[in-house]
Amino acid sequence: MTNLESAVTQIKALVGDRVTTGMAVRQHHGTDASWHPPLPPDAVVYAHSTEEVSAIVKICAATDTPIIPFGVGSSMEGHIGALKGGICIDLSEMNQILAVHAEDMDVTVQPGVTRKQLNQHLRDTGLFFPVDPGADASIGGMTATRASGTNAVRYGTMRENVLALTVVLPDGQIIHTGGRARKSSAGYDLTRLFVGSEGTLGIFTEITVRLYGIPEATSSAICNFKTIDGAVDTVITTIQSGIPVARIELMDDTQMDALNRYSKLDYPVAPTLLLEFHGTEAGVIEQAQMVQAIAADNGGQDFKWATVAEERSKLWQARHDSLWAILALQPGKQAFPTDVCVPISRLAECIAETKKDLAATWLKAPLLGHVGDGNFHLVMLIDREDPKDVAEVERLNDRLVRRAISMGGTCTGEHGVGSYKMKFLDQEHGDALNLMKLLKRSIDPQNLMNPGKVLTL
Amino acid sequence: MTNLESAVTQIKALVGDRVTTGMAVRQHHGTDASWHPPLPPDAVVYAHSTEEVSAIVKICAATDTPIIPFGVGSSMEGHIGALKGGICIDLSEMNQILAVHAEDMDVTVQPGVTRKQLNQHLRDTGLFFPVDPGADASIGGMTATRASGTNAVRYGTMRENVLALTVVLPDGQIIHTGGRARKSSAGYDLTRLFVGSEGTLGIFTEITVRLYGIPEATSSAICNFKTIDGAVDTVITTIQSGIPVARIELMDDTQMDALNRYSKLDYPVAPTLLLEFHGTEAGVIEQAQMVQAIAADNGGQDFKWATVAEERSKLWQARHDSLWAILALQPGKQAFPTDVCVPISRLAECIAETKKDLAATWLKAPLLGHVGDGNFHLVMLIDREDPKDVAEVERLNDRLVRRAISMGGTCTGEHGVGSYKMKFLDQEHGDALNLMKLLKRSIDPQNLMNPGKVLTL
Repeated sequence: MTNLESAVTQIKALVGDRVTTGMAVRQHHGTDASWHPPLPPDAVVYAHSTEEVSAIVKICAATDTPIIPFGVGSSMEGHIGALKGGICIDLSEMNQILAVHAEDMDVTVQPGVTRKQLNQHLRDTGLFFPVDPGADASIGGMTATRASGTNAVRYGTMRENVLALTVVLPDGQIIHTGGRARKSSAGYDLTRLFVGSEGTLGIFTEITVRLYGIPEATSSAICNFKTIDGAVDTVITTIQSGIPVARIELMDDTQMDALNRYSKLDYPVAPTLLLEFHGTEAGVIEQAQMVQAIAADNGGQDFKWATVAEERSKLWQARHDSLWAILALQPGKQAFPTDVCVPISRLAECIAETKKDLAATWLKAPLLGHVGDGNFHLVMLIDREDPKDVAEVERLNDRLVRRAISMGGTCTGEHGVGSYKMKFLDQEHGDALNLMKLLKRSIDPQNLMNPGKVLTL
Repeated sequence: MTNLESAVTQIKALVGDRVTTGMAVRQHHGTDASWHPPLPPDAVVYAHSTEEVSAIVKICAATDTPIIPFGVGSSMEGHIGALKGGICIDLSEMNQILAVHAEDMDVTVQPGVTRKQLNQHLRDTGLFFPVDPGADASIGGMTATRASGTNAVRYGTMRENVLALTVVLPDGQIIHTGGRARKSSAGYDLTRLFVGSEGTLGIFTEITVRLYGIPEATSSAICNFKTIDGAVDTVITTIQSGIPVARIELMDDTQMDALNRYSKLDYPVAPTLLLEFHGTEAGVIEQAQMVQAIAADNGGQDFKWATVAEERSKLWQARHDSLWAILALQPGKQAFPTDVCVPISRLAECIAETKKDLAATWLKAPLLGHVGDGNFHLVMLIDREDPKDVAEVERLNDRLVRRAISMGGTCTGEHGVGSYKMKFLDQEHGDALNLMKLLKRSIDPQNLMNPGKVLTL
């Protein structure tokens, strides 16, 4: 019996038919939201408790079997592909909301809870969980990739919003990191070491996150610009003025075209900002007026309000459907999503140079992003069977990422490293990368946890 | 020649008379802001650059000499005592502000820059650095202890505000962690591993922190209460209502008495809240009115505004002089400062039980704190030569800390662990403590960096 067979046999004894080696299930668990073909694991087990995850991990450690944690599979940088085979631990059935502490404005959930499920559960409490990466990702996966999204500019990312974790370490040990106090100086910040570790240091089985009061008033606005520079300058001035916008999203002309077609809207095909304001009734009006004035100074046109909830939802739904809208531009092609983040003072320059690259390629590639943080995305459409397309998309991505890093930015603002962005970490982190490797080797000496991701050892 | 002598000789060759073994200097560098007698290092070296710190650390590593980084010595939990002798690296002369990026709202400083120096430097930019632990601490020390203070409730702690670090590791290697992009998912969060590591994992030689726009309007208010419960309930409701107070400080009757005497004020000797609001002209009025209404519901009396800058400064100066005011209550005694932090839902109960303890002791012990975060302090006055006082203060501190931890809180909200709070980490962290020890052993296998602090290995 091979090590793998032994692991599967032992796990079967533990969880019965919740472990499977069926091809369809394996295929599904090797598929992420990138353009790459699936890399299925050897087996998939649906875990139901912290203790069960611990027992499974112990079996894997004893049999030297790689472990890949899985949420909903919405990651984009090759986080879940079974590069070295092994067992995928699917956490989607650990989807209980364990404790809402409304008074403390926090909630403890199992990792399989999705962000929409959480907000649905919270609807009568007056509270909400703001982190919103677009996809209905699991809280476990969002913690693992240090996700953020449209309203991180106001509410922060998973880095700021995870308070505490229960983690199963690579030897099966269960630990609790952090706590529900809003601050602490009691020792090393293990919580933030695990946030963003992409399944390479341990598996999260409970996650406590911050909640926020649903604002008294919300309003949205949309505004288009003659030039993308005008839109970006509006963002920069807004942030520098300290206006607490909740969301400030840029979509370029290509993206607006995609969105109009897909969502049957008729916005001008021009660089556009989509904004949301949270506050008191008076506060959101004050904020929106300030931004409107800034936009006008930068060639903004047709500044339109959407205070009615329905209209607002329609706008943001269209934004959230971006990926589908983009795919519909060239049916049959695959999307190559990528994201970078730069200091906001370099955002205009970074976007301008990127748009130059895009003007000179045959690939269609809408640009959009959470520009209030200096974070933007390209979604490049390719035919993955065409080596020319693949080479071109890799070339463009390489230029984009290295440009962002050279401007003091990062190779990924929110998607994570996975296996596809590892090659950029050396340029970004230099010798600090050795310390990351040391931490990985110390915590996971067998290199069992999601091997081949984030770091090469 | 002993190892230590060899280290000092080599360092002398490097920096000349910037290394000293004079008793007065050593004594000063073994003295913190706690009641404990000094624990002087064997020598003190005033470093002037990252490269120099690296060279000194390499000499210490080669000679197995303990290293203690030093800022201004304002820490309170025995962070700087030379428990195992060794070389103190004083960073106070590395006090250059290296780069203000006003557009990106961040600044890079050397570790010896103090928070007041930084804000003085920034005065013409319209920006400020909000983290304010009371003392004019160095940014390096504040990073090392994960400091916070009065306005963390709005602007966060050093955890949220440090963007990037240059760190000299225990083998002398220089690394750069984090970056100036507002968010990143590119690998392990080394920055936050170092923030709060209290000199045990490396020495910070450059620190990049976030800045904020000076608010258009600021106002302060003060309000006293019949009962401490009324004051605490006002805090809880204010936070839960999402009112973005910039500061919300509680002082009990003993503290108000101390403050009146020391600062020649005549506030009622009663539990008191001191508040500050930041925002637009309309916004601060709106916030203050909401809090005033909440206070009135909870027995708040004499709600007084201080919109004039001078009056506001007087109030906050008195608050900042708390330690001196407390010491003046019983001249000749020493202050035993301690702090805990609990989830805000447990704050009233935690304070009530603590006040019961204080009612039953002979020690004078004002209670005050940054209650918006659930964080409060006791400053207990003792005669350190009197074993009864010492035993009593240890007993009270023990009860306070274990009570906070049992309520889901932490043994220290902002002072750090140092050597005096190590005994509580087991109760707070359980098995996670083993992971902290593993990290320490991996990064600092010789246990050279501030040995005997945070963790026993």
